[in-house]
Amino acid sequence: MRHRRKQWQTDILAEDFPFYIKEPSTKKGQWNNEKQFERVHLEIGSGKGQYITEMALMYPNHLFIAVEVMPLIGSYILKKLKDYPLKNVYVIISDANHLIEWFEDNEIDVIHLNFSDPWPKRAHMKRRLTHPLFLDFYKRLLSKHGEIQQKTDNIDFFEYSVVQLSQAGFVCFDFSADFRRNEEPDDAQTEYEERFMGYNQPIYRGVWRYCHD
Amino acid sequence: MRHRRKQWQTDILAEDFPFYIKEPSTKKGQWNNEKQFERVHLEIGSGKGQYITEMALMYPNHLFIAVEVMPLIGSYILKKLKDYPLKNVYVIISDANHLIEWFEDNEIDVIHLNFSDPWPKRAHMKRRLTHPLFLDFYKRLLSKHGEIQQKTDNIDFFEYSVVQLSQAGFVCFDFSADFRRNEEPDDAQTEYEERFMGYNQPIYRGVWRYCHD
Repeated sequence: MRHRRKQWQTDILAEDFPFYIKEPSTKKGQWNNEKQFERVHLEIGSGKGQYITEMALMYPNHLFIAVEVMPLIGSYILKKLKDYPLKNVYVIISDANHLIEWFEDNEIDVIHLNFSDPWPKRAHMKRRLTHPLFLDFYKRLLSKHGEIQQKTDNIDFFEYSVVQLSQAGFVCFDFSADFRRNEEPDDAQTEYEERFMGYNQPIYRGVWRYCHD
Repeated sequence: MRHRRKQWQTDILAEDFPFYIKEPSTKKGQWNNEKQFERVHLEIGSGKGQYITEMALMYPNHLFIAVEVMPLIGSYILKKLKDYPLKNVYVIISDANHLIEWFEDNEIDVIHLNFSDPWPKRAHMKRRLTHPLFLDFYKRLLSKHGEIQQKTDNIDFFEYSVVQLSQAGFVCFDFSADFRRNEEPDDAQTEYEERFMGYNQPIYRGVWRYCHD
């Protein structure tokens, strides 16, 4: 489905905001330079930004960096932050294939993968955010006790991810085959999650750490 | 629920059969002594033996060792094998806490944990067959490319097991959050599984290997 770009979207994407990082490589190694934040979170595939903005409100001492590849979708995050400014959110509208250019080794404490595109076709496997190519990036980016938090309702993608993460040397610290059967006050919901919650589709979640030698 | 022991059960448990190993420690290191079998399987908690006998028929070149702690239940395996002899099945009716006394290091190729008692209470945690105490046993027992195959319909027990296995250094090679949504011709069903298949309860399955140094 193609959406026509609305005028406000074209405008906001051209605008400059302190939270809108158009050249993320210039901030490499500098994201939490003054150590003013306790932890640095990176969400890859932020959609319209509901999850990351709610998390930013819940954890004001943490820094949240949103990455969204689709400008049309990312424009909604910019709009949210323009209307309701938050001091602990940055937005990158670009392709996560460039992660390594944006962040120094060990600069990230938590990587969030929320309802990532499952790329079900074998030919698109390399685009899955838990493909070994991405896992190698994450290993470099993550701090000593850093972790990946994955949520998805796509069973095939989840099964694939568990095997890939485990084989890449990540160790599971929390695991749920039906995350929303309990109250989870420490975690925000994505817009996607909220929309599909009533469908009786379980939400799978894993938290994985990579133990640096 | 307590069952009254029937006369045939008392009788068969006292009988001697070549497949009924009353003193398993005497076979330590000798289970596949003449290397006549390609792989040695151990099922812990075999119930009435449907799974292990079907697997033994499917894989006649593999050896299958059934362990069942409850004599009343184990008597059904003995009866099955008395009525329909199989050359590649042994039965141990005893407590898996003694595993280390029965098997030499690296003597087992596949450990099957099928619908194990979840022991939901915290006070009984040590009885769970994926408790670290048992995982330490399995590490010793398993051969170089040996693996644990777990199936269960208990979500809490499964979640617990994934975390424990991963943290104990096992690596996941196959994973399913709804095993029976596809045909699985290589794997037999337990009597329990068969009975509950219609209930729309997913069956979780993980295959884990421990990489010896």
